[in-house]
Amino acid sequence: MKFEDLVREHDKSRMLDLILSSPLEFVEYFEKYGEIELPPSVAGVKIPSEWRNVAVLGMGGSAIVGDVLRSYLLDRGGTPVEVVRDLRVPAHVGRGTLLIAVSYSGNTMETLRAAIEGLRRGAYLVAVTSGGLLGQLAAGVGAATYKLPPGRPSRTALPPMLAAVLRIAEAAGITGPIDAPQAAERARKLVERIRGSPLDSAPARVAAELNNRVPLIYSYQPYSPLGLRLKTQINENAKYHAFYMELPEADHNEVMGWE
Amino acid sequence: MKFEDLVREHDKSRMLDLILSSPLEFVEYFEKYGEIELPPSVAGVKIPSEWRNVAVLGMGGSAIVGDVLRSYLLDRGGTPVEVVRDLRVPAHVGRGTLLIAVSYSGNTMETLRAAIEGLRRGAYLVAVTSGGLLGQLAAGVGAATYKLPPGRPSRTALPPMLAAVLRIAEAAGITGPIDAPQAAERARKLVERIRGSPLDSAPARVAAELNNRVPLIYSYQPYSPLGLRLKTQINENAKYHAFYMELPEADHNEVMGWE
Repeated sequence: MKFEDLVREHDKSRMLDLILSSPLEFVEYFEKYGEIELPPSVAGVKIPSEWRNVAVLGMGGSAIVGDVLRSYLLDRGGTPVEVVRDLRVPAHVGRGTLLIAVSYSGNTMETLRAAIEGLRRGAYLVAVTSGGLLGQLAAGVGAATYKLPPGRPSRTALPPMLAAVLRIAEAAGITGPIDAPQAAERARKLVERIRGSPLDSAPARVAAELNNRVPLIYSYQPYSPLGLRLKTQINENAKYHAFYMELPEADHNEVMGWE
Repeated sequence: MKFEDLVREHDKSRMLDLILSSPLEFVEYFEKYGEIELPPSVAGVKIPSEWRNVAVLGMGGSAIVGDVLRSYLLDRGGTPVEVVRDLRVPAHVGRGTLLIAVSYSGNTMETLRAAIEGLRRGAYLVAVTSGGLLGQLAAGVGAATYKLPPGRPSRTALPPMLAAVLRIAEAAGITGPIDAPQAAERARKLVERIRGSPLDSAPARVAAELNNRVPLIYSYQPYSPLGLRLKTQINENAKYHAFYMELPEADHNEVMGWE
């Protein structure tokens, strides 16, 4: 018996298949989204020749792609990136802001309200959604829409959402060309190894260790979003508690809980 | 017996007195720091006529004042504020960045390294410290130093650190005048009520509820830094576990752990 077979016994919604197909799906959408151009104006606001800042709007699984963009640009970007997990945008959002609204359903209340507030202040909107009210709003104001495949749990839409956000950063000139397919190819090989791994290998041992315990997850930049994603995947897929903290910050306070 | 007397029995390091004296100490330093002006240049870099962004460098109790500044400016500021809890600064930090390095001891390794990297990139440095290497670095490059009172646990230096960061934002024109003394007066009245409260009142009941449990703390903007501060105070003062998550984000994933 292999690890994959064991998971299939417990994983009634076939979440593992969706997760393991991520690299291939990412490449598919990364290529598709490469053809989208940003319109010269949105809601009457011209596309700026230079961006002041980027605000990525989203909640949960949609916000995480903003965190990944921010981490990716930590070493590379000339533009501050902020992830807004709230229904209001900071006061500095306005003219010169690239406002990326990410909502799988298109109906996330917080994201919609923040997008409308940002538009009112003169920010340049781009939408990443399968449709819903955000899709209608984007169509109404003439914003580019990176259309996500509909009809599945929103947290499984990470590959197309990530492909969209990276392509938007490329199209806006926030970053130079991204060699995403090469990274995805490395991820695909890792997936093949996980699929075929025997029952006593690392993935199964980690799963056994976690059983009936509350995972405390720590990660550090540029990998912090992966730690937060793991925490939220445990919350949402296993309906189980898990907590997350960033390093080296945790070394300055949370570490004292272990004394 | 009053709440204050009960705490005194258990609080050998007299942390409660330090915390309850916060409002008065804040006002004292807020007035003192109001006299400091920012020099026309730091390390040969002229003070910009317009700020591109603010980066507050710090760890733990020093970083939290950056979070407070960020939350305060959510409604008021025209400039993005980022709190950097790391030894590297994001690539967009450089000319036009107001770089506020906060380290109580002045010897926090992460903050020192990030400050040096920011200076190299042409950011304008201001230091908040009781001395140490950061104090020496600031003196060497001609940066303004908001001098903190030395010789106590760094996490009790929140009032002067907060006063400094708010005064820096004022002096740099990031925000208009701040009526901090009025807010501190309200806090002082609250402190008086806590001091005199009987044993069966809210503070004592909350303390009893927390005993031998792991607190999970949730807060939302603009109060998020208070939630994080509470978590780290429990970690550092009680040497106990406590975890923190922001709302409404937690509604999109962590809430599933309660199912």
